[in-house]
Amino acid sequence: MKPVNHIKIKKSITVNELASQMDLAGVLGAGRLGKALNICETMIKDKNCNVFLGLAGPLVPGGMREIIIDMIENKWVDVVVTTGATLTHDLGEALGYRHYQGSADADDAELHKKGFDRVYESYMPNKIYEGMEEFIADNFDKLKDKKSIKEFLWELGMLTPKRSICKACFENKIPIFCPAISDSGIGLMIWGQLARGKDIETRTFDDLKEIIDIAWTSKKAGVIYFGGGVPKNYIQQAMQLTPKSASYGVQITMDRPEPGGSSGAELKEGISWGKMNPKARFVDLICDATIAMPIIFAALKERIK
Amino acid sequence: MKPVNHIKIKKSITVNELASQMDLAGVLGAGRLGKALNICETMIKDKNCNVFLGLAGPLVPGGMREIIIDMIENKWVDVVVTTGATLTHDLGEALGYRHYQGSADADDAELHKKGFDRVYESYMPNKIYEGMEEFIADNFDKLKDKKSIKEFLWELGMLTPKRSICKACFENKIPIFCPAISDSGIGLMIWGQLARGKDIETRTFDDLKEIIDIAWTSKKAGVIYFGGGVPKNYIQQAMQLTPKSASYGVQITMDRPEPGGSSGAELKEGISWGKMNPKARFVDLICDATIAMPIIFAALKERIK
Amino acid sequence: MKPVNHIKIKKSITVNELASQMDLAGVLGAGRLGKALNICETMIKDKNCNVFLGLAGPLVPGGMREIIIDMIENKWVDVVVTTGATLTHDLGEALGYRHYQGSADADDAELHKKGFDRVYESYMPNKIYEGMEEFIADNFDKLKDKKSIKEFLWELGMLTPKRSICKACFENKIPIFCPAISDSGIGLMIWGQLARGKDIETRTFDDLKEIIDIAWTSKKAGVIYFGGGVPKNYIQQAMQLTPKSASYGVQITMDRPEPGGSSGAELKEGISWGKMNPKARFVDLICDATIAMPIIFAALKERIK
Amino acid sequence: MKPVNHIKIKKSITVNELASQMDLAGVLGAGRLGKALNICETMIKDKNCNVFLGLAGPLVPGGMREIIIDMIENKWVDVVVTTGATLTHDLGEALGYRHYQGSADADDAELHKKGFDRVYESYMPNKIYEGMEEFIADNFDKLKDKKSIKEFLWELGMLTPKRSICKACFENKIPIFCPAISDSGIGLMIWGQLARGKDIETRTFDDLKEIIDIAWTSKKAGVIYFGGGVPKNYIQQAMQLTPKSASYGVQITMDRPEPGGSSGAELKEGISWGKMNPKARFVDLICDATIAMPIIFAALKERIK
Repeated sequence: MKPVNHIKIKKSITVNELASQMDLAGVLGAGRLGKALNICETMIKDKNCNVFLGLAGPLVPGGMREIIIDMIENKWVDVVVTTGATLTHDLGEALGYRHYQGSADADDAELHKKGFDRVYESYMPNKIYEGMEEFIADNFDKLKDKKSIKEFLWELGMLTPKRSICKACFENKIPIFCPAISDSGIGLMIWGQLARGKDIETRTFDDLKEIIDIAWTSKKAGVIYFGGGVPKNYIQQAMQLTPKSASYGVQITMDRPEPGGSSGAELKEGISWGKMNPKARFVDLICDATIAMPIIFAALKERIK
Repeated sequence: MKPVNHIKIKKSITVNELASQMDLAGVLGAGRLGKALNICETMIKDKNCNVFLGLAGPLVPGGMREIIIDMIENKWVDVVVTTGATLTHDLGEALGYRHYQGSADADDAELHKKGFDRVYESYMPNKIYEGMEEFIADNFDKLKDKKSIKEFLWELGMLTPKRSICKACFENKIPIFCPAISDSGIGLMIWGQLARGKDIETRTFDDLKEIIDIAWTSKKAGVIYFGGGVPKNYIQQAMQLTPKSASYGVQITMDRPEPGGSSGAELKEGISWGKMNPKARFVDLICDATIAMPIIFAALKERIK
Repeated sequence: MKPVNHIKIKKSITVNELASQMDLAGVLGAGRLGKALNICETMIKDKNCNVFLGLAGPLVPGGMREIIIDMIENKWVDVVVTTGATLTHDLGEALGYRHYQGSADADDAELHKKGFDRVYESYMPNKIYEGMEEFIADNFDKLKDKKSIKEFLWELGMLTPKRSICKACFENKIPIFCPAISDSGIGLMIWGQLARGKDIETRTFDDLKEIIDIAWTSKKAGVIYFGGGVPKNYIQQAMQLTPKSASYGVQITMDRPEPGGSSGAELKEGISWGKMNPKARFVDLICDATIAMPIIFAALKERIK
Repeated sequence: MKPVNHIKIKKSITVNELASQMDLAGVLGAGRLGKALNICETMIKDKNCNVFLGLAGPLVPGGMREIIIDMIENKWVDVVVTTGATLTHDLGEALGYRHYQGSADADDAELHKKGFDRVYESYMPNKIYEGMEEFIADNFDKLKDKKSIKEFLWELGMLTPKRSICKACFENKIPIFCPAISDSGIGLMIWGQLARGKDIETRTFDDLKEIIDIAWTSKKAGVIYFGGGVPKNYIQQAMQLTPKSASYGVQITMDRPEPGGSSGAELKEGISWGKMNPKARFVDLICDATIAMPIIFAALKERIK
C-alpha cells in the first residue's frame, strides 16, 4: 500500500510540479486530478490510441476556448463530440463577440432589458444572434446540402472567419460531431432560414456511420469527458462497437452517479455495457471543468513533446 | 410573512394531504415540492396553456413508466421532449422486456459476462437489443421515409405492439420530440440498417418548425422538467419564441446551477433570455425524480377532474 | 433478480401505499426510500434493538418539529444526538417564536435591518435571542451545575414551558446528546452569562461515558441519520463500541461521499471501522430530509402498533 | 462589464501565473478560485485583520497536512477552528503513523479484518489507536486539569513529539478551538481514561470567552473556510460579535446551500445575521479542498513577502 504523501509547496512551483505531487498524495480530488493527468498523457502518447473528446457545459463562456482549440491543433484528440451550445458560443466569439463576467445573483429581468443572456455568472450579449443570423443567411447555400452533421460543421468551420473550434477541426481534419445541433442557437438560425421557406438536407442518423467506423477500426480507444450530456453518451455508445472497448478513460464533471443518468454515471458502469475494457485505466473526477482543464492542459504541455 | 407550519401526520394520510401540508410548511424541499405540485395543477387546469414536458434521466428503469404514460393519456401535457435513452428503455418494455433491480456496487465485469447493462442500480438485459433489432429491421420500410424525428417517433409508436410512451403520444396526437435520437439504442439499431446499405431520410432540423410553431401560437405556455439535458434545453429554446415566454415552470432535478450548464440552471436564469416571463410562477426543486414524480402525480390525480 | 415494478397510482393513494410501491419499484431514490422505510420499521419493532437517531440540518425551520417530537414521544428511538442549532431553533419555538417562509434570493442586508436571520429560505426573527437570553438568565442557577451536556439538556427540557424536543426527551427519559452545544445560539446565551462573571461546570467529555455505555450494553443497535455532521459521527463512534456493531442503518442526507468527510460517507464505509455489522441491513438515500422524513414517518405510523 | 478572458497556457506556467489568469477569466470555478486567492492575499496582508481559519473534512488523510502547518507557521492565520477528526488524524501522523492510498470500491469487511479504517479512498491503520492510547495515557495527568478545550489542545501540541497542527498552534501562540473534540478518536482515548476511573475537567463553554474576545477586539476580521461543519459555524457565530462583522470571506466546500444547513450556506446569508459585513469582499467556491488549497497556498507563497 502506498502512503499518502503530503503536498509540500516550494516557491514558484509550476502547475506540472504541483499536479505531480497531487498524484503522489494519491487520494480525493487531488489524487484523482493527478491520475486523470497521467491517463491523459498516456493515451495521447499512445500511437495506437484514438482519443475521443467529449465537451459539454459552458466551456466557452467559462474561458476554456483557447485551451480547447490548442488541444485540437496539437492533434492530441482524434474525435470531438460537443453540444450545440458550445458551438454557438464558439461561433459567436469567432464572429467577434465576447462573453462577459457577471453575477449569479443578477436581476434577470434587468439583464433581459439590457440584452444580456445569463449563463450562471457569465453574460452573452443578445446581439450575438444578429451576427449569427447574418452569417448563417449569407452562407446557407453552402450549408444546405451537407448530408451529415459533421459535414455541416466542417463547412461551418471552413466558413468561420477566425480561429474557432469548428475551424480547428476542419483544418486538422478532426471529425467533430454534435448530434443535438438543432438544440442550440445555431439550430435557431437554421430555423430562421426554414421559416423563410428554405430547405436543408442534413440528416439525423448519418454521422453514426462515421463515428462507429472510427471506433470499429481503432486499435485502441481512449475517452476524455469534460461534462456529460449527449457528447459523453454518444462516445460511450461508439465504444460499444470498438473491438476492445475503451482502454483509457477520464471523466471530469460536477454531475453525480446517484440520479442514475448517463451524465454522472461512473466510468466503471461502462464495463457492464462493453463500453470500457475491464482492464482499462480510468478515473472519475468530480470537479468544475474550468479548474481541472487548465491544470491538466498546462501539465500536458510540459509532458508531451 | 407566513410562518412555517410544522407538518403533522395523521394516520392513513393520503399523498395529496401530505403534499398540501408540505406547501403549508413552505420551505426547503418540502415547501418546493408543495409549490411544484400547485404550479403543475394550475398550468394543467389552465385551458389557455400549452404544457411542455421535458423528460431526462433513467425514468423508465426507475419505475416511472406507467405514470408518464398516464400523464400523456390524461392529456395533461401538450408536447413531450425526451432522450433517446428513455425511448429505448420504453420500447424495450413495450417489446416485452423488463428492467431489473440491482446494485451500484455490482461487479461490472461479471454483469457484462451475464449480459446485463447497468444503469446505476438497475440492470437492462442485453438481449433487449436482439428484440429491438428485429423490430426495427421488420419495420424499417415504414420508418425510413419519415422526414422529421417527430414523424419517425409517431410511426414508431403506431408500430409498437404494446402500451408505450411513443404509442400514447401517437394515439393522443401529442407531439413528441427527441433531437438527439441518434444518441441511443434506437439510433444504434438504425445504424445497423445503414450498415446493411439501407437509407433513412429523417432530418435534423425539421422538427424545429413544429415545436416553434406550437410555442409561437400558444396563448400561454408552461414547462415541466424532470431532469435537464437536451429535453429541457430544447423546450427552453422554444420558449424564447413564445409570445409571452413561459408563464409557469417546474424543474425537478439533482443537477445544480454552479457548473453553469443548462441542465442545472435555475429557471429564473431563463428570464434574462426571454424564456421565462418575469411574472411567471415557477419553482426549482432539487430532488430525485423517482421520489417527486409519484407524489406530484398522485396529488394531481386527486385534484384534477 | 427482481424486475422493476412500475409505480401505478390509484386515486386517494395513501403515503404508506405509495411508499410500499416505491419499494417494489426497487431502484434509485424511490427504491431507496422504500427500503429506508422498511429498515426503520424493522429496527423500531425489534425489541432487542436500541435505535440511535442523529439529527442535523435545519429540521425545525424546515417544518419537521412535530414529527421529531412525535417520534420521541412514541419511544421509537432510544437515543437522540443533534446539533446546537436544532436545539436553539426548537427552544425558540417552545418560547413562542416562529420561523417564517422566505426566499433564498432575499436581500440579506435588508433582512438584517428588519431583524430576520436567514436560514436558506426560512427566516428566524432576531428577537428570538431576547426571549432566549431572558430564559437562560432566569434559569441559569439550575443549569450551571450540570456536569454533562445531557444533564444540561434534560434540565433545559424540564424548564422549557412548552412541548419541545428537549422536553420530550426529558419526559420520556430518552438520553439526548449535543457534543457541540457551545456552537449555537444556546451557547451564545451561556456565554452572555459567563461574560457577566458567572460560571458553568458542564464538561466536554462526560457524555462519552453514557452514550458508550448504552452502545456497549445494546443487544442490537440501529442508526437513523437525517443529515450528517457531529450527530452522525458521534453515534458512529459509539457504534465502534457496540458488541455487534450496528445491525440496521438508514442515512438520509444531501451530502455526498466524494469529498471524503464523515457527513456524506456511505454507511458501508462503517464496516471497515467496525461501526456497521457486515451483515447489517442498511441503505443510503440522497434526499432532502424535509421530503423523506414525513413520508417515512407517515408510513411508520400506519405500520407500527 | 469585463469580458471573459480565455486562459492561454504557456509552457512551464507556474501555479500563481495560472491562478492569475483564472481571475482574468473571471467566471465559474476558475473565476471563483482566482477571486478566493485574491481575497485570501488581501486579508492576510491586511495588518488590521484577524484571520479565522475553519478546517473540516479529511484534509490530513487527503495530503494537506504540510500546507496547513505551513500556513500556521507563516502566521497567516490568527485563529484555527477544526474538527476532532482532523486533530486525531494529525496526532496519528505526529506519532509516526501514515494514511494510505486506497479505493472507494474496497471490500470494507476485508479492510476491517486487515485493520484498516476507510475514509472514502484513504485508509487509516487501526493500530494508530494503540499509539494514541499510549500517548494519552502517558500524558493524561498533564491534560486532565485543562479548563478549556483550547488549553487542552495547546498542551497536546506541546506534548506532541513531532511537527503537527496542534504543535504549530502552540508554538506560534495561535488559538486553536475544537468545540466537538469529544466526537473524535482523541475523545475516545479520553473516554478510555474515564472508563479507568480517571477524571478530566475540560469544560464545554469556556472557549467561547476566548474566541468571542478575539472577535470582539478585532479591528477587522476575515474568514477562510475549507469545509463547513462546526468549525465554520463556530467562527460564523463569533463574527456576530465582531464590531464590523467579517470584512473578508472565502468558503471552499463541496456542500451546497439547498439543504439549508450551515455547512453549505452561502456566505452572503451571513449578512442577514450580522456575521458578514454587507460591504465585505467574499466568495463561495464549490471545489474539493485538496485541489483548491494547494493552488491557493502555492500562489500565496509567491505573493506574500
